[in-house]
Amino acid sequence: MKVVITGGAGMLGRRLALRLLSSAELVGPDGNLETIDKLVLFDAFEPVEPLPDDPRVEVVTGDICDSAAVDALIDSETDGVFHFAAIVSGGAEANFDLGYMVNLQGGRNVLEASRRAGRCPRIVFTSSLAVYGGERSVDDTTALTPKTSYGVQKAIGELLINDYTRKGFVDGRTLRLPTIVVRPGKPNSAASGFASSILREPLQGNAAVNPVNRDTRMLILSPGRAVQGFIDIHNADSDMLGSNRAVMMNGISPSIGEMLDALRGCAGDAVADRVRDEPDTMVQSIVDAWPWYADGARARALGMEPDASVGEIIKSFINDELGGAFLI
Amino acid sequence: MKVVITGGAGMLGRRLALRLLSSAELVGPDGNLETIDKLVLFDAFEPVEPLPDDPRVEVVTGDICDSAAVDALIDSETDGVFHFAAIVSGGAEANFDLGYMVNLQGGRNVLEASRRAGRCPRIVFTSSLAVYGGERSVDDTTALTPKTSYGVQKAIGELLINDYTRKGFVDGRTLRLPTIVVRPGKPNSAASGFASSILREPLQGNAAVNPVNRDTRMLILSPGRAVQGFIDIHNADSDMLGSNRAVMMNGISPSIGEMLDALRGCAGDAVADRVRDEPDTMVQSIVDAWPWYADGARARALGMEPDASVGEIIKSFINDELGGAFLI
Repeated sequence: MKVVITGGAGMLGRRLALRLLSSAELVGPDGNLETIDKLVLFDAFEPVEPLPDDPRVEVVTGDICDSAAVDALIDSETDGVFHFAAIVSGGAEANFDLGYMVNLQGGRNVLEASRRAGRCPRIVFTSSLAVYGGERSVDDTTALTPKTSYGVQKAIGELLINDYTRKGFVDGRTLRLPTIVVRPGKPNSAASGFASSILREPLQGNAAVNPVNRDTRMLILSPGRAVQGFIDIHNADSDMLGSNRAVMMNGISPSIGEMLDALRGCAGDAVADRVRDEPDTMVQSIVDAWPWYADGARARALGMEPDASVGEIIKSFINDELGGAFLI
Repeated sequence: MKVVITGGAGMLGRRLALRLLSSAELVGPDGNLETIDKLVLFDAFEPVEPLPDDPRVEVVTGDICDSAAVDALIDSETDGVFHFAAIVSGGAEANFDLGYMVNLQGGRNVLEASRRAGRCPRIVFTSSLAVYGGERSVDDTTALTPKTSYGVQKAIGELLINDYTRKGFVDGRTLRLPTIVVRPGKPNSAASGFASSILREPLQGNAAVNPVNRDTRMLILSPGRAVQGFIDIHNADSDMLGSNRAVMMNGISPSIGEMLDALRGCAGDAVADRVRDEPDTMVQSIVDAWPWYADGARARALGMEPDASVGEIIKSFINDELGGAFLI
């Protein structure tokens, strides 16, 4: 079975790749688990961190907006596609044209290449709670009324996944993700990036800035749970998903204050005191349009679980990314 | 004030044009009524019916998918755009690529040309109850879960109108229309076309086919009320519309049986007996995904009224399109 990950050099793409190389199987076209014998990681740039030397892995650099490149990537051998390549929220807000090019046209290129290849591959599309538009609480029936270009582009992607699936061109599935915390590495241009920075940076001895009110709540999910969600939704029975292929993933909903309290509890005062408040009205306004609470019955029915606590998320980050130690 | 109508040779485009030439004004950029001194009718084909010899009218034929043609159409003089050009429901279902080309790319061309022209024109976009996905009753907060490619393309158009408006590139407004009844002239490829045919054809001495169960209800609106709705939403105060620029127009909800009873009441047995039932499962399945009842509080707040009865709709058609007489 050949599997393609677009955005394969990104944080989630890389983590999923490592997980797929280790578990080595996914549900194939006939509904049974199949061995992955080829894993193609496509991105605009070479992976920053080295990948395992594994004959199944192929790295391809290219532009998701180039339909010929995407046609060459998703071929008649491809049974699974994870489409992660995207301009994130802050980037799509700052560069309107680039956001539509990558997030809308890039997504259509993936769908068209998959359709042309003729095998009706399973495609997992990553959406975001940014598709909502200001409700405090959301569930599987909430209308999508996004207030950012990124949210609009993700909502359009969900509609396209549904339509291409209905027509039998692809077997699409959308996972609507909470904010991923703790993202390792350098900040990206996501407006939500600070939610990771305020935990990640202090644990590594660096100062960090919190741009929003400490009473602001965020729906968060760890990278490990997100990767499990991608595999779960890829493997889910198509009939269980029905005509709306989007599943809203549940998360936990700490306030920023509670996140910093958990950091203090896990790592002590010296670490927690490295965070200072510097209100940013643009970030606050973007984050205010995102829901605080999600009640996703469909995700629960598919067995997708959120993290138990912020403490668990912080400890996973320390173990997975910092080798079990942090800087006091 | 220069006003552009795309799809200007179509039924609604033509009716709106005649109405604008007669009333001669619309709200302009500064919020006051302005005189229309240029009205450009753009379509893929020349108007079939002659237009009045009026120096304000310019007819332009071209392809809405050709961005250069649309850039030339919507220029720095344009303050109002009515974007009607579209592949209708049955057509978009039969020709997937053409539907996306015209309804998605064509719509983006209109938005981009309007953005580039730099005057933030008022754009009225026509959407449809096909954006819903099987609910019997809908209101302004119902999620859009379309079950046809046409519905998906219209839902995407609504999202784009909201985003381009939020960014200040255009002043967009979407009118979500019920099924228009009675459409004059020849049937188009809309799956809803029969709802007009079963009234229009018998009144002109022709047989007509009803492809759906007579208990099926349809939300309908007369062409005259639709044209009034376009003008009302164009002229509406921007702040009243808020961040979601789409307004769901109310209609009346007769069953097919009740529509034919009204025809019998208005025109007699000989006319009503020209309709025969010939079930078509494809049409039935498309129509079944459309709502029967709409409760549009926003439309009511803007003063948009549905027709009083099917009888009123039939009588308007006889007066407006048949010169006041029908064939017994």
